[in-house]
Amino acid sequence: MDNWNDGFIAVDWGTTNRRAYRVDAGGQVVAEMEDDAGVTIVAKDGFPAAVARITERLGEAPLLMAGMIGSDRGWHQASYVPCPASPADLARNLLWVEPGRIAIVPGVAFTGEGRADVMRGEEVQVFGHMAGHDGGNALLCHPGTHTKWVRLSAGAIAEFRTFMTGELFGLLRDHSILGPLLQGHGPPDADFLAGVDRGLAGSDLAADLFSVRAGVLLGTRARESAAGWVSGLLVGADVRGGLASFSGTGGAEKPRCVTVLGRPELNRLYCAALAHAGVLSTGADGGPAFVAGMQAIRKALT
Amino acid sequence: MDNWNDGFIAVDWGTTNRRAYRVDAGGQVVAEMEDDAGVTIVAKDGFPAAVARITERLGEAPLLMAGMIGSDRGWHQASYVPCPASPADLARNLLWVEPGRIAIVPGVAFTGEGRADVMRGEEVQVFGHMAGHDGGNALLCHPGTHTKWVRLSAGAIAEFRTFMTGELFGLLRDHSILGPLLQGHGPPDADFLAGVDRGLAGSDLAADLFSVRAGVLLGTRARESAAGWVSGLLVGADVRGGLASFSGTGGAEKPRCVTVLGRPELNRLYCAALAHAGVLSTGADGGPAFVAGMQAIRKALT
Repeated sequence: MDNWNDGFIAVDWGTTNRRAYRVDAGGQVVAEMEDDAGVTIVAKDGFPAAVARITERLGEAPLLMAGMIGSDRGWHQASYVPCPASPADLARNLLWVEPGRIAIVPGVAFTGEGRADVMRGEEVQVFGHMAGHDGGNALLCHPGTHTKWVRLSAGAIAEFRTFMTGELFGLLRDHSILGPLLQGHGPPDADFLAGVDRGLAGSDLAADLFSVRAGVLLGTRARESAAGWVSGLLVGADVRGGLASFSGTGGAEKPRCVTVLGRPELNRLYCAALAHAGVLSTGADGGPAFVAGMQAIRKALT
Repeated sequence: MDNWNDGFIAVDWGTTNRRAYRVDAGGQVVAEMEDDAGVTIVAKDGFPAAVARITERLGEAPLLMAGMIGSDRGWHQASYVPCPASPADLARNLLWVEPGRIAIVPGVAFTGEGRADVMRGEEVQVFGHMAGHDGGNALLCHPGTHTKWVRLSAGAIAEFRTFMTGELFGLLRDHSILGPLLQGHGPPDADFLAGVDRGLAGSDLAADLFSVRAGVLLGTRARESAAGWVSGLLVGADVRGGLASFSGTGGAEKPRCVTVLGRPELNRLYCAALAHAGVLSTGADGGPAFVAGMQAIRKALT
């Protein structure tokens, strides 16, 4: 594995795009690229060529890849490592596509309490964030299409739970009877916070959603308020569920601080909702955390 | 209005199809037709011709029309009558497209308790069911794309609440990451009832939905169980919300019996979920109730 100490290429290979970073021996990113060759665009036998395009751009080096590249829609299906899962656990369970040269990072699985959960890709950002912070116990929220609430303990992902919040909003906006009301919404405003209130209170989601349309039809709700309110409703329900899932041992104690790790515009919404719930939070950009997480796994390799 | 006593044509004009019934002076259906000229297929200026095709088939008679024909996607927008709403209230507020000859039944609106709600079409079936039963107080469930829970009191719709249950299931089946797991599910089986259990318990919907996919990926859930379980989850959450919305004055007392008024295959699912919640129910076919409801409105006219 000696060649890995001279640097490597970290690839964040998603559904619709991919990013690759050339990391030097000192851990600095010296070159990077991004294109739209997500796993759904690449044909099943097209991955060797798609990988070659990365090394043509960034130079020859060992490749460590994470994300949907390891899913059933990707190149090769990498396993899920059960919780508690540390960077070292993932390093031990890499899927070696080309021994010593190309590896895919496995996902993380949680089963227990009558439920099952998986993540693939977010774990790298989580490890990257951990690498820069005190290990301790922490609750982390990774907002997105499938928002993940992650409890960290002793340098590992102890437990997590996924909420399909972003996907539900997208379904409602793109395909539901509410669609025309949900086009374009911005930063967390008063409408968003009113929706958060409702979501935090434990909403009957299917009823509260329809009520938005009815209110606009009857003139009791301003049309412009709908997108923010529905977004707030879903984020509020998400925050309520996330906090309730990981509230101390008795389930009653409210976490004191949550790290929100994701894209800045989503972080703003979740931090506003957490503040509304009386919980402190810190936003952290998930992008830089990816490279740091890949380095944590790479270090565990050698 | 004398000519209405010689019989009339009742039209149930929906989004994707329409049904028309010729009712004679004695209240018997003597002829009927159905076609796919739903409001979304008919051009805005095509309604007079579309109406003419009904009288060509069923003979000349006054027309009473209900459903989406009175919506913003229909021919002319009919108002919403506020709760409490009786057949006589609707008759007083008909939208006369052609005075004395062609009328559109208005919808029903509820505002209060910080929420707004509308129905358009279901109220006719509800009145039809009422006409054949003791007036009294009753809780009725009209399952469908937008399930309505309706509290009846003193011969009127006192209050109601809509749950987008059927639409949510359709969105998940047709457009979400769960789609491949949700194709085809049948009668209420053990998987359905397990989902109902979860929904009745007050589910974090966005998390429980994702858990289904994760369970299949990790092999802790049988793939064939997913469709029934998700359907049960949504119906269970719907039944929980419906019962909680109309549980006596204190909000604590559970209703003793619910009438489920809709299509037989949906009635079966809701009656099974209600039984699972410890509530008695009766299923009633919504189809015949439509004609009876239109007669109740017609009688209030004269």
